[in-house]
Amino acid sequence: MYKVNAVNRKIPNKIANYKDVVVYSGELKQPKERKIGAAIRVGKKEDKLVSSIKDAIIKSGLKDGMTISFHHHFRSGDYILNLVLEEISKLGIKNLCVAASSLSTCHKPLIEHIKNGVVTSLQTSGLREPLGSFISNGGLKTPVIIRSHGGRARAIEDGSLKIDVAFIGAPSCDKFGNLNGYTGKSACGSLGYAKVDAMYANKVIAITDNLVDGINLPASIDQTMVDFVCEIESIGDPKGIVSGAIRFNDNPRDILIAENALKCILASGLFKNGFSFQTGAAGASLAVTKLLKEEMIKHNITASLGVGGITAALVDLHENGLMDALFDTQSFDLDAVSSLAKNPKHYEISASFYANPNLVTPAVNQLDFVMLGALEIDTNFNVNVITTSTGVINQAIGGHQDTAEGAKIAMILAPLIRARIPIVVDNVSTICTPGANVDVVCTDYGIAVNPKRTDLIENFTKAGIKLYTIEELKEMAEKITGKPASIKFSDEVVGVVEYRDGSVLDVIYKSLQN
Amino acid sequence: MYKVNAVNRKIPNKIANYKDVVVYSGELKQPKERKIGAAIRVGKKEDKLVSSIKDAIIKSGLKDGMTISFHHHFRSGDYILNLVLEEISKLGIKNLCVAASSLSTCHKPLIEHIKNGVVTSLQTSGLREPLGSFISNGGLKTPVIIRSHGGRARAIEDGSLKIDVAFIGAPSCDKFGNLNGYTGKSACGSLGYAKVDAMYANKVIAITDNLVDGINLPASIDQTMVDFVCEIESIGDPKGIVSGAIRFNDNPRDILIAENALKCILASGLFKNGFSFQTGAAGASLAVTKLLKEEMIKHNITASLGVGGITAALVDLHENGLMDALFDTQSFDLDAVSSLAKNPKHYEISASFYANPNLVTPAVNQLDFVMLGALEIDTNFNVNVITTSTGVINQAIGGHQDTAEGAKIAMILAPLIRARIPIVVDNVSTICTPGANVDVVCTDYGIAVNPKRTDLIENFTKAGIKLYTIEELKEMAEKITGKPASIKFSDEVVGVVEYRDGSVLDVIYKSLQN
Repeated sequence: MYKVNAVNRKIPNKIANYKDVVVYSGELKQPKERKIGAAIRVGKKEDKLVSSIKDAIIKSGLKDGMTISFHHHFRSGDYILNLVLEEISKLGIKNLCVAASSLSTCHKPLIEHIKNGVVTSLQTSGLREPLGSFISNGGLKTPVIIRSHGGRARAIEDGSLKIDVAFIGAPSCDKFGNLNGYTGKSACGSLGYAKVDAMYANKVIAITDNLVDGINLPASIDQTMVDFVCEIESIGDPKGIVSGAIRFNDNPRDILIAENALKCILASGLFKNGFSFQTGAAGASLAVTKLLKEEMIKHNITASLGVGGITAALVDLHENGLMDALFDTQSFDLDAVSSLAKNPKHYEISASFYANPNLVTPAVNQLDFVMLGALEIDTNFNVNVITTSTGVINQAIGGHQDTAEGAKIAMILAPLIRARIPIVVDNVSTICTPGANVDVVCTDYGIAVNPKRTDLIENFTKAGIKLYTIEELKEMAEKITGKPASIKFSDEVVGVVEYRDGSVLDVIYKSLQN
Repeated sequence: MYKVNAVNRKIPNKIANYKDVVVYSGELKQPKERKIGAAIRVGKKEDKLVSSIKDAIIKSGLKDGMTISFHHHFRSGDYILNLVLEEISKLGIKNLCVAASSLSTCHKPLIEHIKNGVVTSLQTSGLREPLGSFISNGGLKTPVIIRSHGGRARAIEDGSLKIDVAFIGAPSCDKFGNLNGYTGKSACGSLGYAKVDAMYANKVIAITDNLVDGINLPASIDQTMVDFVCEIESIGDPKGIVSGAIRFNDNPRDILIAENALKCILASGLFKNGFSFQTGAAGASLAVTKLLKEEMIKHNITASLGVGGITAALVDLHENGLMDALFDTQSFDLDAVSSLAKNPKHYEISASFYANPNLVTPAVNQLDFVMLGALEIDTNFNVNVITTSTGVINQAIGGHQDTAEGAKIAMILAPLIRARIPIVVDNVSTICTPGANVDVVCTDYGIAVNPKRTDLIENFTKAGIKLYTIEELKEMAEKITGKPASIKFSDEVVGVVEYRDGSVLDVIYKSLQN
């Protein structure tokens, strides 16, 4: 028994370990009247310092069947999740749900904890190898719930995701629990994802490798929410936490894509004083920022706002007076970290502020342009950013669906072909962002505009930009690669992809490719 | 029918317009498990700017019987409350509850709105003339609910005080609703009280006389909570908002009191590196800060934290390296305003962060010393800070009961006699802070210590400080002034004084003095 949702996917009426399937309707779901409300703990004056992670876990009251949360600001350098699960495992606690803002390659040990029954469910924005294949091959008994950054914040705030104990890696922290990510050997910049966990979890444990004297201000997460503070040797590998600075590369394919994107921005009618945009840290996105800077200077145009994962390229615009403000949920490189610490209008925001649809004005609603990547795009403009061409989970949704809906113009920047596989296809294997919110597709071979954006088609045509239909792009790709063979799946659901409002956009089936 | 509470007051079982009387038990009431949760509004992209206060009120959906809130950071210079009520009155909306963080002399027009039935109930931390007498004489049909700053934040967060529309005066604001109090002609510094209203109100209206271009960062209250932005000519009278700088005066009575307080601090055992304190802006308090600074320099001792209403005296300590951090819910003078804008460890905190008992660590729990004033102190150490010697409401509770409970040593600094009226009495007319939380009483005639603080009595005696019993202080006062005549009240309740946890500490009866 299933329902067909607004992006034409068959969604089972019942999914194991998943409460109340509501299928994606094409419109944001009407939320409850109020958020769930933070957990109350009556103020005590006792010392919050605990001697070890083990001690913190015991004091938190963690029990079988509870939900624990983690944040991914340390990216592939994260030590926290593995250290905590190791202690939990030793304590014999079982049947936990791990709700992480995202999971990386460094979280391989999770596989053992899943096999041992310590972890029996997962909620995350993304999964990389080897965890992704493990899940796609049916390694976890219940489907992983995959949410965007905005969707996760929404789920925490509306009570869909109830966190019993949040574990927060803190690059600097005082004994009261005032913590931030600006300084220390494990500095990661913004703690935007962790902010939401800290506000709503029943118990909050700060784990730091930089316990500072005095009061640690300004605080990204403060003493009013932190229950325990634990000092350890090291919370992460600096090399994995941030890159030196993510800078422009000159990959010719990325340049072609970026040049196409630039043309669209310039001709869109929204390239004017006070415009705003988000780019990722991918090559083509970074190239756009660089090209855009030249155009801004040439046309004497300044931007009001840069949003998202912040990179050196955006900091450069900000510090050169070309961009008034930066909203930062995640700092991608050292330049972004140091800018966040010193520039008052480089502003740390929570994942909720960034993209929760249930707020008056989440940052994504202020975007004129967002430049997004894609693993696949189909002829309905639906985008897949989570499963590979073989249908295996190996990426992350991030803010993709949030920004696509929020921004006035959502642009997909992707090569037409990647490793001999066409990117524009008849049907994406997994829908992560509905085509209704995707406006422009810029490839290295040409540009397609969503037919419902007649305004953009008119503006682009007037500016002399050659446009293709999405079907033409698909045919172009298939002419080079041939039509890809369809992927084989079992009928066992291994993942649920939610839309940001909590409705079900798609499900991921167990892979039969191996 | 009544119950006697833990401070020996008879509390009626039923009070008009007051839900579920729970009497003060001497212990903090066990709260619910969770806060109420903020109101959800699905993000829109429409312009928030409205043309007038009237327009904002209409768009907010304000209706008869609702609750509206105001903050008192503009103190006696506030224009917002009167302007808003004038428009509401013109719109014919009636039967409102006004929940203000405090009310000043400038809010005299409220009397007319009460008489006209526009406002039929009041909740506030304080009331001054002429509103105080009006209420004490039975001008409002339902009892005013008087809460401390921490109690108000607690009530908002646990749902006891539900705000339909919050009106927030914004010294600077952008069109998205990012606002702060640092800059502009009506700069007031911290917006600590308003922060709580903004987080929990169903609708939030920012009213500004300084609409700034671009994104206004850092924001004390941000775009994710503000529904409408309204620009008007002026939100307050700068002369009434902040004083130039509240500086030390040399009133000899204050100096005597301060010198006694200083002796106690030095002998307490808590005057050591990393100590913390809160002083108010009253003469004796300021004098203590000045005297303490000399001792800190002399003994090479630095403080970790200053809390509360921040003044130039505390900023001076901070900027001279004698105090690591300042927690600011309310900036009392221009020096505090400019320090908040520039010093990263002068940190703006909400009233909840400051004093809500239902948080892991509210700031008041970090205090070693708090120096508080008193209108009356009784021989059980109970303190009155709300009613005058004639039993008329004319002051504010502020953070009195919050800090008295939170601080390790709560010190009352008050003259023994004021305008020929003894301050130490058999029974205070209204209990605002339970004697169990009051440790030391410093007067110009001598010092008394709560007998349960045997540790302090021992330390002070060792240090050669002459101590009196509280009864001796009372007798000393009465010897000079004679025993004061008892005040006459009717049996009509005009005010309910809550403890910070929401239990009833005392009631105020209608005055029969006039």
